[in-house]
Amino acid sequence: MSHSAWSEKMLQLLRRMNNFYSAGSCRANCFRFQVDGAQVGWIPPHVAPLLARYPQVFSPPQDGVVSLCSSLDSYEKRSEAVDAVLQTQRKEDTFTCLKGWRNERYSVMPKFSDPPLMWMERAATSLFGVRRYGVHINGYTVSDSGEVRMWLARRSATKQTYPGMLDHVAAGGLAAGVGIKHTAVKECEEEACIPAAIAEKVKPVNTISYTYEQDGEVFPESQFVFDLELPLEFKPRVGDGEVQEFYLLPIDEVKELLASDDFKPNCAMVVLDFLIRHSFIEPDSEPSYQEFVAGLHQTL
Amino acid sequence: MSHSAWSEKMLQLLRRMNNFYSAGSCRANCFRFQVDGAQVGWIPPHVAPLLARYPQVFSPPQDGVVSLCSSLDSYEKRSEAVDAVLQTQRKEDTFTCLKGWRNERYSVMPKFSDPPLMWMERAATSLFGVRRYGVHINGYTVSDSGEVRMWLARRSATKQTYPGMLDHVAAGGLAAGVGIKHTAVKECEEEACIPAAIAEKVKPVNTISYTYEQDGEVFPESQFVFDLELPLEFKPRVGDGEVQEFYLLPIDEVKELLASDDFKPNCAMVVLDFLIRHSFIEPDSEPSYQEFVAGLHQTL
Repeated sequence: MSHSAWSEKMLQLLRRMNNFYSAGSCRANCFRFQVDGAQVGWIPPHVAPLLARYPQVFSPPQDGVVSLCSSLDSYEKRSEAVDAVLQTQRKEDTFTCLKGWRNERYSVMPKFSDPPLMWMERAATSLFGVRRYGVHINGYTVSDSGEVRMWLARRSATKQTYPGMLDHVAAGGLAAGVGIKHTAVKECEEEACIPAAIAEKVKPVNTISYTYEQDGEVFPESQFVFDLELPLEFKPRVGDGEVQEFYLLPIDEVKELLASDDFKPNCAMVVLDFLIRHSFIEPDSEPSYQEFVAGLHQTL
Repeated sequence: MSHSAWSEKMLQLLRRMNNFYSAGSCRANCFRFQVDGAQVGWIPPHVAPLLARYPQVFSPPQDGVVSLCSSLDSYEKRSEAVDAVLQTQRKEDTFTCLKGWRNERYSVMPKFSDPPLMWMERAATSLFGVRRYGVHINGYTVSDSGEVRMWLARRSATKQTYPGMLDHVAAGGLAAGVGIKHTAVKECEEEACIPAAIAEKVKPVNTISYTYEQDGEVFPESQFVFDLELPLEFKPRVGDGEVQEFYLLPIDEVKELLASDDFKPNCAMVVLDFLIRHSFIEPDSEPSYQEFVAGLHQTL
């Protein structure tokens, strides 16, 4: 693939993963989802009428805003009231996304540094455009001559999302009340059988942020990015069955794969960030360097 | 200084350097500056009436847009016509910023990857809210035990901007038609007497972007960030007189200084990015980690 074709593929990826910000997205028709007076998400237009059926939980849409009722005045009350609504909808099979119910509680707050206002089932967050946080670990080796190779995973064919696609050596969502590095280390152990003694060396290096709409739902996401230099002789092994195989690939091959449609898209973004931070992409030979960085950090 | 006070200082810095995006900024009253149908900047409200005096160069403000006249249909014609206007204004002493005339030509284009549509004198770019690009070099050492120290410069007391403040070991603006790494290496040589053999090892690692308004002018800026690990025995020396002194400081001290008002603000942002990329700030102990990263990458 020519350099300019590769570059255009990366720009397409970044545009797709930020399509909520594009002219013509559902954003103009979304309701701001507010809790305790602060916006915590975006409710797509087809979801709002359904929520209006629960006036003891959601106040009726007004001025483009849907709020949780102010009588729900604590973390527990809000979480349980919304969960009850979602459990009902799950049984009624209203939303496809709820078929992927995970029993994983995600924190809901305006900004990551704010105290959580409630928790919400992971599978439901895209109905409310609530930002999800996760961790991604770039696992790589450096040979004695300095050559860098990256460990990639092939996702299991039975994964609920993006089955069979290329992924990081380990990654996962950040559940309510769980530490960030703790999650990174745990995912390394569970998904790739990386012993704690090695996994503890993960280094936090960045975040990426993006928001896409897909099938009428809204996915604002931020990933905490970690680098983990693995010993040359170490081989990740399939752990909890989320992965079918691991590969150790030279950077040139990783770059080519990034531009294929074989990569889970947000992993491709994290790898793009890795390539930039490790100087495998240089601004003089990559005219879109600045646009790449901007596309990795879109927030409203 | 307590951790939370330090963190709040960093957030204040990022807000100040992105104040053009804040509610209440002059942005709502700025005119979009268009060349050949594409926006390349923001013209503050007090500048537009003056430009209207040159109808052979600027079309009259309309629908919030000021355009270069379409008769100026080449890079040269546009650049020369605008330069002639600016030279007149410089003589008439209309704008303080033009007192800082540098005879440095900056490229004007919608995005960095687009072909430049014209050049403009560096000192005038803030009258048109044209994005300026530059390079910043983090010069640092790593001891045998792994301790990182950073070389900082104290700007000369006679510098036109930010005299006497703390700065990177080298940094500079990107002039029209000059390479990015070339500029980084040249600044290392000129400002800090870093020999080419060492300076050539600069590694491109990121960009930061921000837009601030100040004294009624608009400053969109993007900096290409480089890391340069310097040999332990090497000492930068004052070169072209832009610097009065260099210091080699432990990271803890650099962090404290970041929160003082002693740092040139955009350098403080680049150092904050260095601290994040090198894991001196960790997301579990820094609640604003995600906000820091977002604040380093604001684009419209």
